[in-house]
Amino acid sequence: MDASEFEDARNRRSVHLSVVPEFSPGLEGVVGAETAISEVDGANGRLIYRGGYLIEDLAPVATFEEVAYLLWHGELPTKAELETQCRQMVAARKLNQSARGTLSCLDPSTDPMDTLRTVLSAQGATKTLTKPTLEEAIALTSVTPTVVAAVHRRAHGQEPIDPRDDLGHAANLLWMMEGKEAEADRAHWLDTYLVLLADHGLNASTFTARVIASTGSDLASCVVGAVAALKGPAHGGATFAARSMLDKIGSADNAEKWLREAHAQHARFPGFGHRVYRTYDPRAKILREMALVAAPKLHETAARTEEVALQILHDAHPERPNATNVDFWASVVLTGVGIPKEMFTCLFATSRIAGWTAHVLEALADLRIIRPASVWKGPEPGKKAVPLADR
Amino acid sequence: MDASEFEDARNRRSVHLSVVPEFSPGLEGVVGAETAISEVDGANGRLIYRGGYLIEDLAPVATFEEVAYLLWHGELPTKAELETQCRQMVAARKLNQSARGTLSCLDPSTDPMDTLRTVLSAQGATKTLTKPTLEEAIALTSVTPTVVAAVHRRAHGQEPIDPRDDLGHAANLLWMMEGKEAEADRAHWLDTYLVLLADHGLNASTFTARVIASTGSDLASCVVGAVAALKGPAHGGATFAARSMLDKIGSADNAEKWLREAHAQHARFPGFGHRVYRTYDPRAKILREMALVAAPKLHETAARTEEVALQILHDAHPERPNATNVDFWASVVLTGVGIPKEMFTCLFATSRIAGWTAHVLEALADLRIIRPASVWKGPEPGKKAVPLADR
Repeated sequence: MDASEFEDARNRRSVHLSVVPEFSPGLEGVVGAETAISEVDGANGRLIYRGGYLIEDLAPVATFEEVAYLLWHGELPTKAELETQCRQMVAARKLNQSARGTLSCLDPSTDPMDTLRTVLSAQGATKTLTKPTLEEAIALTSVTPTVVAAVHRRAHGQEPIDPRDDLGHAANLLWMMEGKEAEADRAHWLDTYLVLLADHGLNASTFTARVIASTGSDLASCVVGAVAALKGPAHGGATFAARSMLDKIGSADNAEKWLREAHAQHARFPGFGHRVYRTYDPRAKILREMALVAAPKLHETAARTEEVALQILHDAHPERPNATNVDFWASVVLTGVGIPKEMFTCLFATSRIAGWTAHVLEALADLRIIRPASVWKGPEPGKKAVPLADR
Repeated sequence: MDASEFEDARNRRSVHLSVVPEFSPGLEGVVGAETAISEVDGANGRLIYRGGYLIEDLAPVATFEEVAYLLWHGELPTKAELETQCRQMVAARKLNQSARGTLSCLDPSTDPMDTLRTVLSAQGATKTLTKPTLEEAIALTSVTPTVVAAVHRRAHGQEPIDPRDDLGHAANLLWMMEGKEAEADRAHWLDTYLVLLADHGLNASTFTARVIASTGSDLASCVVGAVAALKGPAHGGATFAARSMLDKIGSADNAEKWLREAHAQHARFPGFGHRVYRTYDPRAKILREMALVAAPKLHETAARTEEVALQILHDAHPERPNATNVDFWASVVLTGVGIPKEMFTCLFATSRIAGWTAHVLEALADLRIIRPASVWKGPEPGKKAVPLADR
């Protein structure tokens, strides 16, 4: 990538705005990008993936590998196209030497997302700056489960396990975590989770990836920044928080008492409310149904928790469209899959990296540095700087 | 940091906008934050640092350590305050075990910014999520020169050198790079460079740090994402590009011929033009004067290059406010300091990390997830998802 391309982009600016526009906190309602990767139709509770697929139509017929292909290429793959991509994915599952070494230098008790951030940074390190490519997108997506599984095993004092060439993306992740082949239904639940979380408009981590891409940086840099953003409890960390709340509640019987007490103490309920959705999150709907089979006991507690939480939130703020979001039921399904909650955010990253990389590849087509304005809240300029000796 | 704090922030949203607002590519003119850390007054060519100081008033009287204090606290330090901070900085200069190990696992020929990204990620890895603190800001800022110097030495087959406790931030960096104490003037030029680049409104890397912070993530995550963004040639990478152009030009005599040929081939000139400045960059003005002493030979080539480049750009687009930006003269001053151009972007990070961390600490006061809207460019939703067997 040539510096001059970016100078060009810089120069395509319009005249300077003389009126300072209004600040929308959290950039709510501000358009951060035009995209054809996915669309969250919050008013109608619809999630549309690239090509125009509604998530509820796509999830029952496509695997994570097919959805990743869709996000990267714009159409679902034929059998031959899928086979080619799966061969590339399988070939890219192993950590390179830098990443293996880096992993071994981090204490096994390190926050899983910190290890993921660091090891992916090492895996993606190169000698010279490269423009993001589809091959790199496939490679980084394919190697992520290997890091995630190794983090899990090291935390339990176990040696990492090599990937298997004959397993799909989800089944191979469970293999590398557990060291035995998972039952088909657990692999299927995980695969569906990975499909459902793969992209979601301009969420904070995807937006981070696009801001980094806009400077002409490399794909690993975009992904590492996105992992850094996903870590936050207001973003990817919310699934962990939802499960932790369910753990505290313990049983369906205790839900009402616990939630009312927590609400009286101004606690908020993770897994409810969303910036964009005004209605029930369509992904939560699918996960709720799946959780009935995947984790029937926890489903019971969760269903009662949901019922009471929505009632409390509605009573307190009838004007707010508080509805169940994906984090709530994802925490139940992942539990059914057998994933410990400490790994939930890493699982989210394992899915969303398909979307992150698709957004970066899309953004390359019209690269312009993302450099917003700011509103000055400081004093009038011109204060005299007194030398240290006189302070 | 509690997940409920963020749920709260989520719920403070206003009603959903029914009108899709316009998209401003690169978020030009869109307000990304309110801030009192710094202000770029592009129309008047002024850079204002926290407290209301114009950069040209501050640079002659304050060291990098004092300016970092200013950005973190809002006022220049007294002698006692500065001493306390400098003690903290000196104590935080060494890499921890994870970072040392990670550094040794990366090939010495790795892109310096990739190594910086990875080693800072390892250095900042913790067991549990922590809310960003001033102490962490000081620690990450203080350790960055240690990584940068080690990257430089390893690239030349040399062992990293331990930091010295008795040297200031700039002088210690040169010590760790070169293994001998630098002349006072070289340390001073470097220190002034670090002061000038320490913050600059909502540039892409600072904005990245603020987006990551908005999810409730930790400070190391914010800094790692910012490094990832700074790497791009449209951002921190431009100083390298400017110096590379000067290398190709070679001498003042050759400037006109080289630039006219390059322009005829639609090449853009790194170091000219800026999203915000409509006039000469005030930092470039200071660096230009300093370069006259720091690198007189290269100054001659650069001054002629600047003259011709501005003429060509003006003739081609008289309506565009193309002016010299900081990258151009920074590349000359850093050369005078004795920094090889491969390390320029890392030097930029060494300075800007003060601003990144100050912005994150400021953003904590009113944390709301940055989650912009997007405009859907895909087909109408509802396309039937055909199973693989039927494709």
